Amino acid sequence: MTEHISSVETIDVRFPTSRHRDGSDAMNPFPDYSAAYVMLRTSTDAEGHGLVFTVGRGTEIEVAAVRSLASMVVGQPVEELLRDPGALARRLVGDSQIRWLGPEKGVVHMAAGGIVNAVWDLAARRAGKPLWKLLADFTPEQLVAQVDFRYLRDALTQDEALDLLRTASAGRAEREQRLLADGYPAYTTTPGWLGYDDEKLARLCKEAVADGYDLIKLKVGANLADDVRRMAIARAAVGPNTRIAVDANQVWGVPDAIGWMGELADFNPYWIEEPTSPDDILGHAAVRRALAPIKVATGEHVHNAVMFKQLLQAGAVDVVQIDACRVGGVNENIAILLLAAKFSVPVCPHAGGVGLCELVQHLAMFDFVAVSGSLDGRAIEYVDHLHEHFTDPVRIKGGRYLAPTAPGMSAQIHAEALTAFHFPDGPQWSAVTEA
Amino acid sequence: MTEHISSVETIDVRFPTSRHRDGSDAMNPFPDYSAAYVMLRTSTDAEGHGLVFTVGRGTEIEVAAVRSLASMVVGQPVEELLRDPGALARRLVGDSQIRWLGPEKGVVHMAAGGIVNAVWDLAARRAGKPLWKLLADFTPEQLVAQVDFRYLRDALTQDEALDLLRTASAGRAEREQRLLADGYPAYTTTPGWLGYDDEKLARLCKEAVADGYDLIKLKVGANLADDVRRMAIARAAVGPNTRIAVDANQVWGVPDAIGWMGELADFNPYWIEEPTSPDDILGHAAVRRALAPIKVATGEHVHNAVMFKQLLQAGAVDVVQIDACRVGGVNENIAILLLAAKFSVPVCPHAGGVGLCELVQHLAMFDFVAVSGSLDGRAIEYVDHLHEHFTDPVRIKGGRYLAPTAPGMSAQIHAEALTAFHFPDGPQWSAVTEA
Repeated sequence: MTEHISSVETIDVRFPTSRHRDGSDAMNPFPDYSAAYVMLRTSTDAEGHGLVFTVGRGTEIEVAAVRSLASMVVGQPVEELLRDPGALARRLVGDSQIRWLGPEKGVVHMAAGGIVNAVWDLAARRAGKPLWKLLADFTPEQLVAQVDFRYLRDALTQDEALDLLRTASAGRAEREQRLLADGYPAYTTTPGWLGYDDEKLARLCKEAVADGYDLIKLKVGANLADDVRRMAIARAAVGPNTRIAVDANQVWGVPDAIGWMGELADFNPYWIEEPTSPDDILGHAAVRRALAPIKVATGEHVHNAVMFKQLLQAGAVDVVQIDACRVGGVNENIAILLLAAKFSVPVCPHAGGVGLCELVQHLAMFDFVAVSGSLDGRAIEYVDHLHEHFTDPVRIKGGRYLAPTAPGMSAQIHAEALTAFHFPDGPQWSAVTEA
Repeated sequence: MTEHISSVETIDVRFPTSRHRDGSDAMNPFPDYSAAYVMLRTSTDAEGHGLVFTVGRGTEIEVAAVRSLASMVVGQPVEELLRDPGALARRLVGDSQIRWLGPEKGVVHMAAGGIVNAVWDLAARRAGKPLWKLLADFTPEQLVAQVDFRYLRDALTQDEALDLLRTASAGRAEREQRLLADGYPAYTTTPGWLGYDDEKLARLCKEAVADGYDLIKLKVGANLADDVRRMAIARAAVGPNTRIAVDANQVWGVPDAIGWMGELADFNPYWIEEPTSPDDILGHAAVRRALAPIKVATGEHVHNAVMFKQLLQAGAVDVVQIDACRVGGVNENIAILLLAAKFSVPVCPHAGGVGLCELVQHLAMFDFVAVSGSLDGRAIEYVDHLHEHFTDPVRIKGGRYLAPTAPGMSAQIHAEALTAFHFPDGPQWSAVTEA
């Protein structure tokens, strides 16, 4: 019998990060980094792993969505799926009834992305390559076939995408060697969580510089006086040559963003991230005009390629922050990377949480080797949490991500962690409930 | 003991409308009109009803989301909830963990809207008024207090909203009398479903004119030759004086929309609805510039007030189509009505499906009495499906909605229908499964 997908299992797994306020910001004071974990199995016992990152409550809704979409994958012939993951992505995103619940946004879109990513993990394992390398070895024609151009053509046609990828083909081999030798730049958010005290902030800032980072990020937006004090502490700790980005996690309206950032401008912030609603394209454009030369960054909550297209068309962002688990999976992220390259805007992926570093590094590295061909102004976010639970954790050295070499998308969580942190029945949670 | 919310029940109810292709369009060939039905009960056995409209598969995800949010409502004191539904809306939409799954969009936002609407239904029942009248009797200050202005201030401040409402206060009593006497204009989509044959199209077009409608709507976008033929049939059937709107349900990209509509321009279409992705604000603006004087309409899939704000700021729409069940409930729709009034753009609500006519008529009538104060260019969509299942169904006469007079938001479905069409266990579905 032809090999087919025999099961799609999904697991609600939550890590109690809020107990130490790791990950705390102005919008998310007490996140519990969590995931709707996705595991595909084939009839020959091959596996593909993916996950939808969440921050605690509501993960059960994401799990329900993955379960609903799973019926479109179970029973499918594996060879066909792996030959054309774009067709699966279009089918999951385009189901004429489920589409009503998006379209192409929120819970159902993220669930589709989790499944699509698990299929890509399976594809990369089967090819014996890390995902970044699998994609970087595709021809321009193969890559363009991954993208749904329906809503993108007014900004990027298939032919323009092909031209862009063909131009980038020239230096692929040389860039791959550079990547394997030197890794990919990282920046760190570890010092800047809002729930950390001043002493911890200063200490972590100094450690970041000592560890080789030239860009760190601080959370802002809860209290202006606190932000001024914390920026002063951070600037004093890192000196004038380390860039400090700040991140408001959407707490402001447009006029608030402009006013508040005016008060922080003396500390020379590198970018302001999520100054307002991620849906507010025109608002980001207004903030960018008002605050230049401070850069504007967003993306972790930008729900699809149509929104990224407009952020670029409107000149609303200096930095595109893709997220591996927000949009409809690898396919839609290829579209976003192509759009960013077309508009010559650098991509600095959102990461942290649980598994986001592991997954998104593949997309950034693929971008460097085969799409934008550049590291200028680029860095992948890095946060030192929860990597120990992954079978192929990220490796950081001297402020850089080393290129993963194991086959797959690095999404697999150790079985023991899935059991221990399973919500609400795993021992890490049932103990709390009983306490 | 203080009266409190004792339970939030949610029911997956689906009507097999796809069997006759009622509701068929280019994006939704076989919808089964459905709902995640929401019923609040208080400790004194008072009830509030709401629903989240869906089109079949995936309703179970919406049900899961309502269940997850329900814990934020159960146990709450009723008096406090009814005194400030805006606080509940902000709490449901702003939960710092669940917010990650939106924010303010898709499955979780619609679930919040379903619960908020059920609270408003309870409030209106308790006040002994239909919802439109309850809202129209609020002071400008009370109305403005319903709105979360955080992301809206660059387009509409609280003071501007107050001014606008105070100006509209003058004619409230007179407009209420007109509404009660004459009703509110309707338009009909009944003739134009894509799955209907030419004979049925012509017959239903003529019936619509005979029934008093001066605006009908046809679905387009699946096949250009078919659309040209169907537009010719419809135009011949209704004559030159009845307006014909067309609706592409998002199947086009921006260049396709402009090209395709060029081929239909000779038939004098009144508006083109959903020419492309509902997320594409700049795309709608480009389509509008290219196709004027054909109007551009959208809104049934526009996921929150931030998106409506930008559609208005960008001059992207001639017609704002609010939906009672897409955004975060009555509160967010008040914000959208205020934005539309500020930009002097008429609101023509999306309806049809199941219950959408029943719910949204209250918002349009409130808008006429207390916000925009106008009927110019305004009409509520009407489709003659499934009204028999409601305890307070819409009443249409001479192409107009008669104002509902029963207390509440008209959202209640008969208990027998909830049982019969419960998915997958109700007799209407188990019979199919067994066949």
